[in-house]
Amino acid sequence: MINTDSTLHIEKVTSTRVGEVDFDNLVFGKTFTDHMFECEYKNGAWQRPTIKPYGPMLVYPGMKVFHYGQAVFEGMKAYKDENDDVFLFRPEQNLERINKSSKRMAIPEFPKEIFLEALNELVRLDKDWIQKGDGNSLYIRPFAIATEVGVSASPSKEYKFMILLSPVQAYYKGFVKVLIAEKYSRSADGGVGAAKAAGNYGAQFYPTSLAQEKGFQQIIWTDSNEHKYLEEAGTMNVFFRINDTLITAPTSDRILDGITRKSILDLAKHNGVNVDVRKLTVSELIAAAEDGSLKEIFGAGTAAVVSFISHFGFKDKIYELKEQSDSFAVMFKKQLNDIQYNISEDPFGWRKKVELF
Amino acid sequence: MINTDSTLHIEKVTSTRVGEVDFDNLVFGKTFTDHMFECEYKNGAWQRPTIKPYGPMLVYPGMKVFHYGQAVFEGMKAYKDENDDVFLFRPEQNLERINKSSKRMAIPEFPKEIFLEALNELVRLDKDWIQKGDGNSLYIRPFAIATEVGVSASPSKEYKFMILLSPVQAYYKGFVKVLIAEKYSRSADGGVGAAKAAGNYGAQFYPTSLAQEKGFQQIIWTDSNEHKYLEEAGTMNVFFRINDTLITAPTSDRILDGITRKSILDLAKHNGVNVDVRKLTVSELIAAAEDGSLKEIFGAGTAAVVSFISHFGFKDKIYELKEQSDSFAVMFKKQLNDIQYNISEDPFGWRKKVELF
Repeated sequence: MINTDSTLHIEKVTSTRVGEVDFDNLVFGKTFTDHMFECEYKNGAWQRPTIKPYGPMLVYPGMKVFHYGQAVFEGMKAYKDENDDVFLFRPEQNLERINKSSKRMAIPEFPKEIFLEALNELVRLDKDWIQKGDGNSLYIRPFAIATEVGVSASPSKEYKFMILLSPVQAYYKGFVKVLIAEKYSRSADGGVGAAKAAGNYGAQFYPTSLAQEKGFQQIIWTDSNEHKYLEEAGTMNVFFRINDTLITAPTSDRILDGITRKSILDLAKHNGVNVDVRKLTVSELIAAAEDGSLKEIFGAGTAAVVSFISHFGFKDKIYELKEQSDSFAVMFKKQLNDIQYNISEDPFGWRKKVELF
Repeated sequence: MINTDSTLHIEKVTSTRVGEVDFDNLVFGKTFTDHMFECEYKNGAWQRPTIKPYGPMLVYPGMKVFHYGQAVFEGMKAYKDENDDVFLFRPEQNLERINKSSKRMAIPEFPKEIFLEALNELVRLDKDWIQKGDGNSLYIRPFAIATEVGVSASPSKEYKFMILLSPVQAYYKGFVKVLIAEKYSRSADGGVGAAKAAGNYGAQFYPTSLAQEKGFQQIIWTDSNEHKYLEEAGTMNVFFRINDTLITAPTSDRILDGITRKSILDLAKHNGVNVDVRKLTVSELIAAAEDGSLKEIFGAGTAAVVSFISHFGFKDKIYELKEQSDSFAVMFKKQLNDIQYNISEDPFGWRKKVELF
């Protein structure tokens, strides 16, 4: 599936833009580094992988991604420690997942070796864009788009696989209010909810805007069939703590196999926390909120890592969650953070050092 | 929502490419005419509507449509009669629908007057690209895409609304074999199935490719919940004739409000055909196939107009449909065709003449 010339080609910028950036006032995902990665797929094969200066590209308006949403993406981060060493977090998991997403969206899979090499090289080249300090990181956005020109509804024969880098601060600040979905839904059995398919995200914007008008920041998605089971929070997986048990939905056609999610499950076991991966119903949640056994709700995802939820709304009633002195969310966020920033040991082997020289 | 300068700006090509086109061997949706329409949305308003030479555009890889699938489209056609007059078919319906789709995808609606003016002007400019004769037409592709650069999952603040024109011959040739979906699904209640959202189409490619490996061309989609109800056929609405009753699913969150679908329903009533807009179950369909009361199945959509289905597959069994001497599908196709090509009267007022001079 790859042409003979799979040697990574690198075209460097003549001068860096890093000095122009105000790193204390970054808007998430708006600033891009000097370089980007690009590999084209045509004639049945991935062509020469290339790192080149970040910039615009010339495309035709009949390109299939514009018309049929044949596109997938990933979110990852690179972290810098106090010694200026740079680390990725489980990068092979992202490659595995984008390839699963690609398969579901009829996009050819991307070769693992080229992905990992390109990723290392790209981060190495743009390492000066990574700030140290809590919450600072380099957001990494691999994605694949259908580039064949043609407005007939059939899979593209040409694609681009790209990686963009964007320096970021913490994604969410403070506590989040979420609204439990009663009408709109995110995904269905037999659909593409488990894939990081582009259209899954655009489809959430309108229902989310309705929730925002009511004073919530995000939606807790429920199953499309009965709106009975709690599934995801916005674009994150969602965890519930009832008494001292940590509950999250099992992965399925409808639920993203989140890397932060699975890392938290491993951390929970490591910490001796009782874990229950099962479908939790809205009525169980309400009952637990009313009898005081519901201690925490939090989102988990690469962008926000762990997102603290302070209130949830359901049918015109708002439920408040008290801050816990022994918060699971705080503990998992700190433990993940310490592994990611090379502050603590990494008993799981998740951290991957970027070869900088 | 529109800037003061809403005057249509026109930039013509210096020489036409129409002479280079082999109109007898067109691949659907691959050839584009000399001009295209474009209107940008920024600072909360649609900017100057512009017709300009068809060609590539410079975009950034962080553009939201690539990452979040915030994109909608329409399909329409222009037809030329024997006197070189050109007609559109219910164009205001497409504008209404793209605006409904846009609303669901959090894209600002496009002004009707500008759309209709631009459409007339664009078709007028490129009228020489429209061939006369059965099945020949000019396929019209209005679409809107999110153009703001930024990889955070929130609605774009910038968009492009564009119209492309593509000369086409008949879309499908011959009879189609369809497979009834048992595992994969197209849409869910509360989702975006009723919108012509880009991601709905890309999500169908993989399940469709699996059906194609089994010898079918398209899938008949069933409800995601139980796979019990028959919903759509590929990218078309689907009709069933049991005895002399025409049955099609009611529109819903999951089912596109097809313009060909609603026109066929009107034609059916006009012809005194008994119409039953209701949910038809797979088991009813199988029973009707087995007792011989199932006479026809056909798809309806702008691209194919009416698509004749000769076989359907369900659970490893294939059911054949005999050709009917009094075929509804043939009758509706001819009647639609005759209205579209200005061959017959148009008692419904569907045909809209393009002002060519």
